[in-house]
Amino acid sequence: MKNSTPPTMINYETAAKLLHEHDNFCILTHRSPDGDTVGCGFGLYYALTSIGKNACVLCSDEFPRRYNYLYGEYAGKRFNPGYIIAVDIADTKLLGTELKKYADYIDLCIDHHHSNTHYAKNMLIEGDAAAACEVLYLLLEAAQIPITKLIAECLYTGIVTDSGCFKYPATTAETHLIAAKLINTGIPYAYINRQVFETKSKQRIAIESYAISHMEYYLDEKCAFVSISNELLLETGVKDDDLEGLAPLTTELETVEVGILVKERDKGKFRVSMRSVKNTDVSSICSKFGGGGHYFAAGCMIEGTLPDIRMKLLKAVASVMGIDLWVI
Amino acid sequence: MKNSTPPTMINYETAAKLLHEHDNFCILTHRSPDGDTVGCGFGLYYALTSIGKNACVLCSDEFPRRYNYLYGEYAGKRFNPGYIIAVDIADTKLLGTELKKYADYIDLCIDHHHSNTHYAKNMLIEGDAAAACEVLYLLLEAAQIPITKLIAECLYTGIVTDSGCFKYPATTAETHLIAAKLINTGIPYAYINRQVFETKSKQRIAIESYAISHMEYYLDEKCAFVSISNELLLETGVKDDDLEGLAPLTTELETVEVGILVKERDKGKFRVSMRSVKNTDVSSICSKFGGGGHYFAAGCMIEGTLPDIRMKLLKAVASVMGIDLWVI
Repeated sequence: MKNSTPPTMINYETAAKLLHEHDNFCILTHRSPDGDTVGCGFGLYYALTSIGKNACVLCSDEFPRRYNYLYGEYAGKRFNPGYIIAVDIADTKLLGTELKKYADYIDLCIDHHHSNTHYAKNMLIEGDAAAACEVLYLLLEAAQIPITKLIAECLYTGIVTDSGCFKYPATTAETHLIAAKLINTGIPYAYINRQVFETKSKQRIAIESYAISHMEYYLDEKCAFVSISNELLLETGVKDDDLEGLAPLTTELETVEVGILVKERDKGKFRVSMRSVKNTDVSSICSKFGGGGHYFAAGCMIEGTLPDIRMKLLKAVASVMGIDLWVI
Repeated sequence: MKNSTPPTMINYETAAKLLHEHDNFCILTHRSPDGDTVGCGFGLYYALTSIGKNACVLCSDEFPRRYNYLYGEYAGKRFNPGYIIAVDIADTKLLGTELKKYADYIDLCIDHHHSNTHYAKNMLIEGDAAAACEVLYLLLEAAQIPITKLIAECLYTGIVTDSGCFKYPATTAETHLIAAKLINTGIPYAYINRQVFETKSKQRIAIESYAISHMEYYLDEKCAFVSISNELLLETGVKDDDLEGLAPLTTELETVEVGILVKERDKGKFRVSMRSVKNTDVSSICSKFGGGGHYFAAGCMIEGTLPDIRMKLLKAVASVMGIDLWVI
C-alpha cells in the first residue's frame, strides 16, 4: 500500500513486533551493494525464514561475488510480497533502476545514516551505529530471534565492512561487544575479513596501483583527488565490483585530511566518494551537490567535465576547511 | 643476577606478585620495534610508575615515529635497574645489538609467541593471545593496577598492530571484550588506527607501490615473492620504519596462500617475513632457516644471493605445501 501518512520513528520493540506480525517480506538493498547492505539483507532473510516467514532479498545491481559465502543458503521461493523492508538505504534514490518502483511503498527502513531522508512508514534509525548490521543485531535481540552462525556471518560482514574492521570512528565499545558475541557463534571471521579486505583480483590490484600512482594533492597536501575513467575500466577489465572500498586509499598520505575519489559512470556523469580523517564534515560538502552520507564518509553524483568537477569539489572542500582558494 | 636455574612457567597471579614485590624495572623491547612491543613496553612503564615504581623502556633500535603519541608522558629518570622484563620477545636473538648484553639476566618474559625459547627466569606466555598487550592487559587486571587512558592507548596500539585490527585468526572474542574495555577509557582509537594503519609517508606509499608492481608469483600463483634491496631504500629515501607491516601486501592476490617479503639488511644478508592465509604453517618453514614466529606470520634471516635464497625459500614452501618442485 502506498505510503500516505508521515513516517513514524520506531524503537527496537516496535520493529520486533512488526517482524513477528507480518509474513511475506521483501527486503531491498541499495544499488552498488556493499557488505553492510548485503549482510543486513541476507542476515534479515535468514532470521525471518528461521521463524517460518517467507522472504526474498532484492537489489538493482548484482550481488558482489566477494560475499558469495553469504548467499549459499538462499532459496528463491515464489510468494506475494506483503511487507517491504529497506536496509542500509539512506535515500530512495539509492534503490537504483530496478527497485525504484518500490520507493513509495516501503513499510520499514532499518538504517544507521544520520542523513536518512525518512521515506518509509516506519523508521528504525540508529545514527550512531557503526553499521546497519549493528542495528539489525539489536533488532533480532529485541525480537528474540536466535542469532545462528549463518546470521552471524552476515552481521559480522556488514559490521567489518562499514567500520573498516573496527578502525573507523563510528566503532564503539558496543560494536566490539557485538563482535565478541558473533565470534562466539563459531563464524570463520578471519576468512570473512580476508574476503572483505584482503582478497583481491589481479584487476583490483591493478586499479589500486593506478589510483596510488595517479593521486593528485591539493590545498597544501590536505586534500587528495583521484579519478577513474570508464576507458580505464574497459582497458583493465576492472568491474564495478572491484571498485568497492577504494576511497580510503585517498587519505593514506599523512598530511591528507579529505580524500576524493571520482568514478565516471556515464559520459560526463561522475560518482564522487569523499572521505574525511580529521575535522571536516564531508557529508555537508556532498549534500551541497545533492548527495549525503556520514561525517567521515559521504558521496554524491556530479555532472560536467573532469577539470570542471575537480575545481568545483576542491572549492567546496576548501571553503568548508577555511582554506583560501588561491592555494589550489 | 645471571640466570642459572631452568625457567619457571608462571601464571598471572604470580607475575602480578612479582610486579608488586620489585621496584626498579628495566623493560626490554625487541629490535625493529613494532606496535606490540612498544605498546607493551610503554603500557607496562606507565602501569609501574602509576604505582610508584621506577621504570625505563629500552630498545636496540629507535622507537618508531609512528607511535609518538605513546612516548609523551615518558620521563627518563636515573636509577639502578633491579628487575629486567622482556616484552613481546620470542628469542633473545631479537634483543638486537644494544640489548643483547641483558640476554642472560632477564627476570620475567611477557609474551604471546608459541615459538618462545623460554630464556627468562619467569615466563608468562599466553600462546593463544592476539598480542603481548593482551597478556599485559590480563596481568594488570590480576595485579589490580587501574588501566588509565594512557595505559589503554598503549595496549590498544599493540592489540590492533598484531591482530591486524582484529582481522587475523589470533583475534578472539576475548580480544574484542578487552578492546571494548579499552575504548571505554576514552582513548582516541580512530586516531590510533589511523596512525598504525593508514598514515603513510610519501616514502611508504612509494615502497608499497614498488612492492605491488614487482610482486612475483610462483607455485601456480599460490606463493608470492617480493624483495626490497638496500639500493632501493637508498634511492627512495625509505627508512626501516617505513617497512613495518609491509608483509601482508604479499598475500593480497586471491589465489595466494603464502607470501614472502625479503629485505636486504647487509650485503648478502636478508631478513625474510613470511605470511600464510590458508593451511600452511610458515613458522615451521622459517624455523628450518633458524627463525620462528606464528603459524600465520613468521620470519628468519638468510644469507646468499637473491636468486639463491629465492629458490631455497620457494623449495621449502613447495615442500610444506606438497607441491611438486617443477611447478616453480
